[in-house]
Amino acid sequence: MTKIFAYAIRDDEKPFLEEWKNAHKDIDVDYTEELLTPETAKLAKGADGVVVYQQLDYTPETLQALADAGVTKMSLRNVGVDNIDMDKAKELGFEITNVPVYSPDAIAEHAAIQAARILRQDKRMDEKMAKRDLRWAPTIGREVRDQVVGVIGTGHIGQVFMQIMEGFGAKVIAYDIFKNPELEKKGYYVDSLDDLYKQADVISLHVPDVPANVHMINDDSISKMKDDVVIINVSRGPLVDIDAVIRGLDSGKIFGYVMDTYEGEVGVFNEDWEGKEFPDKKLADLIDRPNVLVTPHTAFYTTHAVRNMVTKAFDNNLALVEGKEPESPVKLDQD
Amino acid sequence: MTKIFAYAIRDDEKPFLEEWKNAHKDIDVDYTEELLTPETAKLAKGADGVVVYQQLDYTPETLQALADAGVTKMSLRNVGVDNIDMDKAKELGFEITNVPVYSPDAIAEHAAIQAARILRQDKRMDEKMAKRDLRWAPTIGREVRDQVVGVIGTGHIGQVFMQIMEGFGAKVIAYDIFKNPELEKKGYYVDSLDDLYKQADVISLHVPDVPANVHMINDDSISKMKDDVVIINVSRGPLVDIDAVIRGLDSGKIFGYVMDTYEGEVGVFNEDWEGKEFPDKKLADLIDRPNVLVTPHTAFYTTHAVRNMVTKAFDNNLALVEGKEPESPVKLDQD
Repeated sequence: MTKIFAYAIRDDEKPFLEEWKNAHKDIDVDYTEELLTPETAKLAKGADGVVVYQQLDYTPETLQALADAGVTKMSLRNVGVDNIDMDKAKELGFEITNVPVYSPDAIAEHAAIQAARILRQDKRMDEKMAKRDLRWAPTIGREVRDQVVGVIGTGHIGQVFMQIMEGFGAKVIAYDIFKNPELEKKGYYVDSLDDLYKQADVISLHVPDVPANVHMINDDSISKMKDDVVIINVSRGPLVDIDAVIRGLDSGKIFGYVMDTYEGEVGVFNEDWEGKEFPDKKLADLIDRPNVLVTPHTAFYTTHAVRNMVTKAFDNNLALVEGKEPESPVKLDQD
Repeated sequence: MTKIFAYAIRDDEKPFLEEWKNAHKDIDVDYTEELLTPETAKLAKGADGVVVYQQLDYTPETLQALADAGVTKMSLRNVGVDNIDMDKAKELGFEITNVPVYSPDAIAEHAAIQAARILRQDKRMDEKMAKRDLRWAPTIGREVRDQVVGVIGTGHIGQVFMQIMEGFGAKVIAYDIFKNPELEKKGYYVDSLDDLYKQADVISLHVPDVPANVHMINDDSISKMKDDVVIINVSRGPLVDIDAVIRGLDSGKIFGYVMDTYEGEVGVFNEDWEGKEFPDKKLADLIDRPNVLVTPHTAFYTTHAVRNMVTKAFDNNLALVEGKEPESPVKLDQD
């Protein structure tokens, strides 16, 4: 019987693992909550493939231990492969897959919800409720339908975000160096970023972190925006010069800022700092502002995304084991 | 020159008052931040009409003082007329108008945003951020697009809510004893409330507070709902048996609850209780729960709504003064 062994399974993944198991009753599926290390590699003995997900490095020793346990077919539940020793993996004849896309909608929904919360001054009202100030004035909301929403980057995430904003009745405009023909036909595109900055009440970034885009939101671009603009970055931290945003918040030019990504997030996000010295004063200040919504790179983190991560990784691994072409193989010779 | 005098103008109303003034340069507009009382009535002397908005009673004395100042044309910026002494108003020959609808979209947007926040477990994540726990697990979100959204009541607010939810990609079903022909043609309606309870992951109430609807959300109806249901009441407090909702939250049957209205809200909402003894323990408990979002009847409170309240009240008052038919007159003989 074909056997697949999974590492580092979290509680929120278990329902989807069970779902996959039930749909593949001819496959023996087992798992551990432990990470894959040279020590835990032996747990996979007898398996035909492993399904993994961890920030911890897949070191030469770990890969060797896994190969010694008889397993060289490894499927990641996430996209990133930077922590795999590729030379060793190649030397040992590993076959590896990843999951390049979890749920673009998760990120678009998060951007839309957070933007609406900023417009509504929800955080201020929540803080008032918590201290039992139940007066409504002056915490007045702006309706989403009254806004001109400018979307920078019209790939899958940007497009879903546009649909959500249109559902609210907002006017949507867009900018992209790669124009989508269908969106172009419908007249969404403005000619330049400057045009978008001039017209948009809400600006959301959905572009990749390529050199040309680094710090595209800066003092100069902010100065071209409307007063009381709302800026949303659930995309990549380096797109934004955060000091320029802070200046815009301090001057009142920027009405509110949504950030799920932050240039200095590595080593700070996804850690528990409660009761410890918080390592980033600037970030702490942003978290505490009533018109800034910070989340620790969790826009992607939905049941839909986690289901995709688990299901696609197992599908990939089964394909590897059965000698078929997996949906998303990882090339090992990336030199 | 025609003169209109306004009472109790708040800061958030001033931009819209100025806007109306600029559009009516032939009218003399003046205002005070004070409420209309027997004492302040004399401020209106020389005016042709007054524009008002207050919870404070319009007593026989107040109305008499206003009539003594020569003013009997009074336009409310809100809908409620319960605090007007109608007999005295009639006796003095008052003509009164109100604003029956401010912005249905404000309420629909609030319902949608809060529902999405509950699904996303945003309040839990906000609380983690505040105490510097930046780990994402286990605070996982449910995507709006994956939900079946059941809308009870398909008037203007219900319909806007449906459009927003469809913008997210959710499946929308609806129930109403008065079926909208267009929505019926599109197949939105289920046959019974029980059908809706059986299918919906998210249930939002948009029905009036008539006797048949009082406590329509109760132990029995909740027992017919799906596990992990999200319930939204931005409509009227009495629609919900809050004790039944609390039992549902405690048992885990209900995933989260959104309330902008509450059966015991009069005298508690729109007051500042900071540093005082909070008068409602049950409400305090609800406010503090991580999966309950309470707002103090502020769903309506947007710039769009306030603009409508100000503009429509002044339009109404001008019509009265000019002897024209106002858009929304209040009948004084309501016996």
